[in-house]
Amino acid sequence: MDRATIQAQIKQLAALKTEGMYLDDFLLTWDRSDDEIAAVFQVAEILMGMRKDNISARAFDSGLAVSLFRDNSTRTRFSYSSASNMLGLSVQDLDEGKSQIAHGETVRETANMVSFMADVIGIRDDMYIGKGNAYMREVAASVSQGYAAGILEQRPTLVNLQCDIDHPTQSMADTLHLIRHFGGLDKLKGKKIAMSWAYSPSYGKPLSVPQGVVGLMTRFGMDVVLAHPEGYEVMPEVEAIASKNAELSGGSFTKTGSMAEAFEGADIVYPKSWAPFNAMEKRTDLYGNGDMEGIKSLEKELLVQNANFKEWECTEELMGLTKDKSALYMHCLPADITGVSCEQGEVAASVFDRYRDPLYFEASYKPYVIAAMIFLAKFGNPSEKLQQLLQRGDKRIF
Amino acid sequence: MDRATIQAQIKQLAALKTEGMYLDDFLLTWDRSDDEIAAVFQVAEILMGMRKDNISARAFDSGLAVSLFRDNSTRTRFSYSSASNMLGLSVQDLDEGKSQIAHGETVRETANMVSFMADVIGIRDDMYIGKGNAYMREVAASVSQGYAAGILEQRPTLVNLQCDIDHPTQSMADTLHLIRHFGGLDKLKGKKIAMSWAYSPSYGKPLSVPQGVVGLMTRFGMDVVLAHPEGYEVMPEVEAIASKNAELSGGSFTKTGSMAEAFEGADIVYPKSWAPFNAMEKRTDLYGNGDMEGIKSLEKELLVQNANFKEWECTEELMGLTKDKSALYMHCLPADITGVSCEQGEVAASVFDRYRDPLYFEASYKPYVIAAMIFLAKFGNPSEKLQQLLQRGDKRIF
Amino acid sequence: MDRATIQAQIKQLAALKTEGMYLDDFLLTWDRSDDEIAAVFQVAEILMGMRKDNISARAFDSGLAVSLFRDNSTRTRFSYSSASNMLGLSVQDLDEGKSQIAHGETVRETANMVSFMADVIGIRDDMYIGKGNAYMREVAASVSQGYAAGILEQRPTLVNLQCDIDHPTQSMADTLHLIRHFGGLDKLKGKKIAMSWAYSPSYGKPLSVPQGVVGLMTRFGMDVVLAHPEGYEVMPEVEAIASKNAELSGGSFTKTGSMAEAFEGADIVYPKSWAPFNAMEKRTDLYGNGDMEGIKSLEKELLVQNANFKEWECTEELMGLTKDKSALYMHCLPADITGVSCEQGEVAASVFDRYRDPLYFEASYKPYVIAAMIFLAKFGNPSEKLQQLLQRGDKRIF
Repeated sequence: MDRATIQAQIKQLAALKTEGMYLDDFLLTWDRSDDEIAAVFQVAEILMGMRKDNISARAFDSGLAVSLFRDNSTRTRFSYSSASNMLGLSVQDLDEGKSQIAHGETVRETANMVSFMADVIGIRDDMYIGKGNAYMREVAASVSQGYAAGILEQRPTLVNLQCDIDHPTQSMADTLHLIRHFGGLDKLKGKKIAMSWAYSPSYGKPLSVPQGVVGLMTRFGMDVVLAHPEGYEVMPEVEAIASKNAELSGGSFTKTGSMAEAFEGADIVYPKSWAPFNAMEKRTDLYGNGDMEGIKSLEKELLVQNANFKEWECTEELMGLTKDKSALYMHCLPADITGVSCEQGEVAASVFDRYRDPLYFEASYKPYVIAAMIFLAKFGNPSEKLQQLLQRGDKRIF
Repeated sequence: MDRATIQAQIKQLAALKTEGMYLDDFLLTWDRSDDEIAAVFQVAEILMGMRKDNISARAFDSGLAVSLFRDNSTRTRFSYSSASNMLGLSVQDLDEGKSQIAHGETVRETANMVSFMADVIGIRDDMYIGKGNAYMREVAASVSQGYAAGILEQRPTLVNLQCDIDHPTQSMADTLHLIRHFGGLDKLKGKKIAMSWAYSPSYGKPLSVPQGVVGLMTRFGMDVVLAHPEGYEVMPEVEAIASKNAELSGGSFTKTGSMAEAFEGADIVYPKSWAPFNAMEKRTDLYGNGDMEGIKSLEKELLVQNANFKEWECTEELMGLTKDKSALYMHCLPADITGVSCEQGEVAASVFDRYRDPLYFEASYKPYVIAAMIFLAKFGNPSEKLQQLLQRGDKRIF
Repeated sequence: MDRATIQAQIKQLAALKTEGMYLDDFLLTWDRSDDEIAAVFQVAEILMGMRKDNISARAFDSGLAVSLFRDNSTRTRFSYSSASNMLGLSVQDLDEGKSQIAHGETVRETANMVSFMADVIGIRDDMYIGKGNAYMREVAASVSQGYAAGILEQRPTLVNLQCDIDHPTQSMADTLHLIRHFGGLDKLKGKKIAMSWAYSPSYGKPLSVPQGVVGLMTRFGMDVVLAHPEGYEVMPEVEAIASKNAELSGGSFTKTGSMAEAFEGADIVYPKSWAPFNAMEKRTDLYGNGDMEGIKSLEKELLVQNANFKEWECTEELMGLTKDKSALYMHCLPADITGVSCEQGEVAASVFDRYRDPLYFEASYKPYVIAAMIFLAKFGNPSEKLQQLLQRGDKRIF
């Protein structure tokens, strides 16, 4: 990448209003202004350009990036770790199993105890409706108090690595993928995306991916269609946000009970399984009562319920209904691929295979998106700081 | 913080005799001279000042900080990790569950195998009387042998992150808290501190916190009172050290079986649960015989024994007996708070709440104390080295 | 170490043809040319010299070193971590238990997902004949595809940290030990080494150590004798390689069913347990069928089989048969030491004790060997790059 392109991107970034992100958290995309969303994409692009040019983006000489994963994770864990490392931070995992938290410590206390040297805290907490985002807000309030009291030398920035409501690092990486695929954020206007439920024989997956997608993509003037069988509704609050977004952006947000209808003429399809909403709520209640056996049997029940909708699969036939029969297929991965990872799943093997490279590109943006979120929270004048990093010109590889 | 203050602190440090710490370990505070203890506080203060001024304390370009936790830990784990990171070292955890150590390797071998690139080894081993500190000494002797033989390029420094005898990073952080609270190490003279047992419904906690506190605080001319019910004695060797310290420092070390008596007129109170001594010894025997079931049932027994002393709680009433009814309340955290983390515990919720910020400050010094211990063990001329870091002036955040 | 020596070593390195290693993996020693093998030793020596002189070998400002351990490990884990740290890379462990890989992700996908910022991937996968090395090749092919498609910004280098076939970081460290012991790679010519099976009461150990040793040491004109009881054959493919190597190097590769015969006049002995070959094959089948109970009972069976050969122990008597009764005793550690780690094992305690320091030296080279493998894969002109690091002259410890 030539230096002039990076310089131009930095100039564009300078035109965006990003002060609101400084020392703040990234919890929900709809908490952030259009300029702030655009700034994340821009910083991510700049960091990509710098890396291609072997220019170090190490803005921290030392510092910790705390991670707390309350659900399994490979790609988000590595994305967070990659982003932190790129900026010069060391990941320190808060493994609740190895900690003393079990014996009755408050969130406020733990949050402060791990933050004396923490510049960032990344949290995945996506298993229980009403719990994950609330927990993040409690952590955020706690470190704000600690910082205000002078206990914390710096106010660690929270990055939502997936909660019950949103999965912002995913939806932002997804959008960056679209930006690069279609040639610009402005090119997304008028594009139709089908965010559709799909059948999966595996466990009850969080609602945060579809919610994150409809809550974000409606901002860019796209025609966003949410499709799912009855019983697989997403949170009404998020639907309300999507509707409002669509209105403001000149796009649309519609719902349908038919995968085919959603796919009809779509530029982009995003077929993906998630758990029935009422099952998720039941799970939260069972969790509240510590009923782990109940959770297990609920998991079985909802797999049975899923099985009623096995025809919700992204097949070649359905892909044939899309724009020029060649909509861009998206997924947050890992997908349940029919005949590969399961007998019958979310997507036909031939469809998945055809889109493998694009899917991997889609995933590849997540580290940069996370790094951009951190960068914008840590530097009040991000364009100036990036310019200085460029001038410093330290090589990533000697 | 202005540069002149840091310079002045460095000058004061230069006046202290610290050669004995160079290439040595930090295992027990009473192994260290008064100058060495003072130097740890001084280096910690300097590192705090540097961090406030955004000056990097990264004295290592690379190097490992090995951690070995044989008991759960959140704050000490993060403190150690923070300290290592601040100095430029990367933590590598020795997880005995994932290692081959199980099949019969000697301590000497493991110690050398993990130390080829290790600058520091931090160990928590606090569960069994007679074991933890002995294990650390065996590791220390092993790496000394390895270093002498030329096998190890550098002699890793051991930091005791809590053993059966002492918890020096805790007691040193506690003291730094007092120094900052009262305005200087010399201000501690004549202050009365009540190190008191308190009731807890949770597991049999190590004796190393009270032992560490009475073994250290008696050095500063304080009136240290140790209070506990019968059966909750601490190690007689440590009591002997406390008595000798008190004599030398012009303070006092007394014992009482009454929490109220201990609190009477106290400037500082430190109410905290620990296990009955004979139970801890029994646990060691059971451990020696591999009797894990026996350990579990012993745990139950000692909780029953604890329950005889539920009135040992730091209540508002008891706080009312202290100096001006406003002694500084201390705790190593997490505390068992009545009505919050348990039905009845070590401290009343209103007392704990009132001291929350001071408690968090108390904890916040641990990373700096650990970093200071490492620094003093690694650099023969610490004041000169700190001066050079200051002159280098690398920014922690770009 | 004086600078002139390092300069001379760099000059010697420059004379070796190493282009084949650039952007390639280190999976089997016999995939690499003699020059490439020599270059690994040379770079390892240079890195050792630099470390002695406190010169930083930090060639990476940031970057990840992914580790995947499918079997327990202490020394290889720490060696990998040390090597990565020395070069400036941060280890990020891929813990399959904490990942989503369980639910049906392909190797190709996982390999790409963890590699967006990965400069190196180190893998231990040694439990199943026919599986480990094949898995590594699949990962290697996957990241090559990802790199070619532009998905990965850099092509991570694979380092085989032990597979079913070879244990190259071990055998290379072993050889470096011999080079240093005997005074040069050329001094190994004509030396007799006995790679012998030995009795162990512990689990079915991989064949990759003996295979790695006979597959590598036959290249240096040594007389390599492989000794084992019937049923403990190694892979015939590796024996074929050893024979061919011996022919080319002017050494020899012979087999015997007698430990005494192997030890007779040996300069070096390497007595070490491994599992019966057919048991390892059975284990692979059981694994293929997911029969974990079967694997457990197979383990018991093969321990019973082992017990038929308890006399295969490296005793003082057997050591008496070696050259000048003082052959160099080697082991990859941990060893099963009679009367120490088990009732009866691979080696007599007095023999092991006499060689403790040499054994620890042997192990100490592994971090440098791994770092050298990474360095040669990452830099097309390694001698020039090392020269530049030397000129940069950054101190490892400030």
